[in-house]
Amino acid sequence: MKVLKDNKEISSFLKLLRKRASGVSYEIQCTVKNILAEVRKKGDTALNKYTHKFDKHDLPIKIKTSDIAKYAKNADKKVIKALELSAKRIWDFHKKQEEKSWSFKKYGVILGQIIMPLERVGIYVPGGKASYPSTVLMNVIPAQVAGVDEIALCVPTPDGETNPYVMAAIEMLGIKEVYRIGGAQAIGAMAYGTESIKKVDKIVGPGNIYVALAKKMVFGEVDIDMIAGPSEILIIADKTANAAFVAADILSQAEHDELASSILITNSEVLAERVIQELNTQLNGLKRKDIARKSLKKFGAIIKTKDIREAINIANEIAPEHLEIMTENPAHIVKMIKNAGAVFLGQWTPEPLGDYSAGPNHTLPTGGTARFSSPLGVYDFIKRTSLLQFDKKGFMILSDAVEAIANIEGLEAHANTIRIRRGGV
Amino acid sequence: MKVLKDNKEISSFLKLLRKRASGVSYEIQCTVKNILAEVRKKGDTALNKYTHKFDKHDLPIKIKTSDIAKYAKNADKKVIKALELSAKRIWDFHKKQEEKSWSFKKYGVILGQIIMPLERVGIYVPGGKASYPSTVLMNVIPAQVAGVDEIALCVPTPDGETNPYVMAAIEMLGIKEVYRIGGAQAIGAMAYGTESIKKVDKIVGPGNIYVALAKKMVFGEVDIDMIAGPSEILIIADKTANAAFVAADILSQAEHDELASSILITNSEVLAERVIQELNTQLNGLKRKDIARKSLKKFGAIIKTKDIREAINIANEIAPEHLEIMTENPAHIVKMIKNAGAVFLGQWTPEPLGDYSAGPNHTLPTGGTARFSSPLGVYDFIKRTSLLQFDKKGFMILSDAVEAIANIEGLEAHANTIRIRRGGV
Repeated sequence: MKVLKDNKEISSFLKLLRKRASGVSYEIQCTVKNILAEVRKKGDTALNKYTHKFDKHDLPIKIKTSDIAKYAKNADKKVIKALELSAKRIWDFHKKQEEKSWSFKKYGVILGQIIMPLERVGIYVPGGKASYPSTVLMNVIPAQVAGVDEIALCVPTPDGETNPYVMAAIEMLGIKEVYRIGGAQAIGAMAYGTESIKKVDKIVGPGNIYVALAKKMVFGEVDIDMIAGPSEILIIADKTANAAFVAADILSQAEHDELASSILITNSEVLAERVIQELNTQLNGLKRKDIARKSLKKFGAIIKTKDIREAINIANEIAPEHLEIMTENPAHIVKMIKNAGAVFLGQWTPEPLGDYSAGPNHTLPTGGTARFSSPLGVYDFIKRTSLLQFDKKGFMILSDAVEAIANIEGLEAHANTIRIRRGGV
Repeated sequence: MKVLKDNKEISSFLKLLRKRASGVSYEIQCTVKNILAEVRKKGDTALNKYTHKFDKHDLPIKIKTSDIAKYAKNADKKVIKALELSAKRIWDFHKKQEEKSWSFKKYGVILGQIIMPLERVGIYVPGGKASYPSTVLMNVIPAQVAGVDEIALCVPTPDGETNPYVMAAIEMLGIKEVYRIGGAQAIGAMAYGTESIKKVDKIVGPGNIYVALAKKMVFGEVDIDMIAGPSEILIIADKTANAAFVAADILSQAEHDELASSILITNSEVLAERVIQELNTQLNGLKRKDIARKSLKKFGAIIKTKDIREAINIANEIAPEHLEIMTENPAHIVKMIKNAGAVFLGQWTPEPLGDYSAGPNHTLPTGGTARFSSPLGVYDFIKRTSLLQFDKKGFMILSDAVEAIANIEGLEAHANTIRIRRGGV
């Protein structure tokens, strides 16, 4: 892992970071565009064709509820318990995000904001090697807390193989509408509807480049959550930090994929050196060491700063997805943080707690978008409608103002709605 | 205005509605792409070039604060009062949307959600003929309520002419950073930054097709608000409605532009006929009658239903931007509404009240996106960060669960962050 000290090195590293996930080849763009167009036109026929082609099976599109239970039986009981504990924690946290409709009456006028859940949501869960039950929990639970009535879930089953833990999570949350489809074709099916799948209002969930691009392309037709880029961790640490813990947390990010980014920012030369030693030791034992090594080499760095204030400034500029603060007084530091998806304070809060069980969502803004985006939450599954009800008195109080503004904006018919009610037309 | 009664007619009209705003010519796409690329590369030089070309002036990019005051002096005092009253109402409504950070502690674990305003926001206000002070109020006030520190505002001044009412609204709200630029070049300047304009985190505000497309293209680099389509009103009315009021409200929407859509859905044949008569009478007096007539012809309709229940179902399917309910008991009807940007209840709540002075935002989801989108609000100018702090006890309670899930997800280094802290590595 490279050690950066001077401003030039740091700023060229930051530029590299920003660029790491940009650009999709023209070929992939065309492929996705064609798949979407075909699904829109031919529905299930196209779905079946692409499932046969990419996932190499011809099983029915829908997974029967009885089959979900059957697949889930192959899951280890201990892991089921872990998922149940996690689900409860995630549920409790997201309940705090609930919003209520409100209204108030003043001078003969009722104004308010009606909060309603989205009617129908589609959730994409990746399949194959990267098939994670935690994805099910983190995407389904906020939708359920919001009160979404219809939840459709798509999870591809490459070679017809179904992940028992994903099925266990689905069964646990009571989701009945589950399809064994994936890729751009699944996104198209949820966005446009087919004979077997009803069109949804919003699509959420992670996926590979084909899925991400398809979501981007159907946006507008339906809503989507964020387009997640490669994962990131940034650790601010001082000399009080435990180097072994820091190294372990860095590696947990680096093992995700070669584009993942892991950064330590510290004012302690001693810590930096110890972390490097620890990384070497811990890395060698890992199954995914090749991925982790490549990720660390390209997008990993230890940034040495004069003081913690400078570390905070750099962190705010990067706006990381995950920010761990392992300093003497992390609660003090967090007050100066302006941009981060989630902050993990102190040595007993490794980021993987948040991936699975702590409660907050693991879908977080990446690539610097924490400057303006939020974690996935209940607020992503509701919509608001403004409510206005005037009586005659309330109307009269505002009528002059509305007429005056309509006149200078040159909208005569707007002004007429006022004049005609006053009997002045 | 056509009268639709049978289901086939109605459903083909709904299809027409959905399509009315789709499709941008390849030429416009290229133009916008080129302008953005040039602004990104050449900064102010490109800005000045395009301002000279499209707005036909060479005035400085920034409008001096003293000049804002000078321009504002030309505004009619009565209108200023109207804007002040509106601003106060808008402020009061949006204050109700404020959200507070929260956290809770349980079993040695602190979890929470930190709410922070966006740091820097760019607001686009159209210039020229469609330059509206209400746009300033409706976009600036929610950002100010959210606590956004830096607000930069762009308003083009075609032929160097500055709208005194727009300047009055800007002065009233204390905005100091104002640029006389417009079009795709203004969006590019806010998204990428130039020598005179610092990059923003989010761009909001309406604009023509060039502005809308530029916003879409810079999305991801910065956040944007919704892409507003042409305006819409849908009125549900029964025999108790005042036909003159209904007609006036329809025309206030139809005068916006030829793509605007105005729909009356009623179970009363008598009302339908009276509204048609009223439309003919009122239309003839209007300055913008040609626009209104074209809009009514193409995207206007009176839909005759058997009962109000059927009217509600069609309204929910259309998911209109503005929904007026003029029936005997509108408060009863509104409970059955699932999708609408804003609802206006009863005969004393014409939609223009909401455009200017009532309080709720006039930036509303169009084109059926009320299925999943909300009015512009304070929530558009904040971001959330999850907060996690575990002590050793809290960590130990979850450690088995996290390790178990990490193991079955095949993420060994994730499990290691747990094992190493337990001393088990």
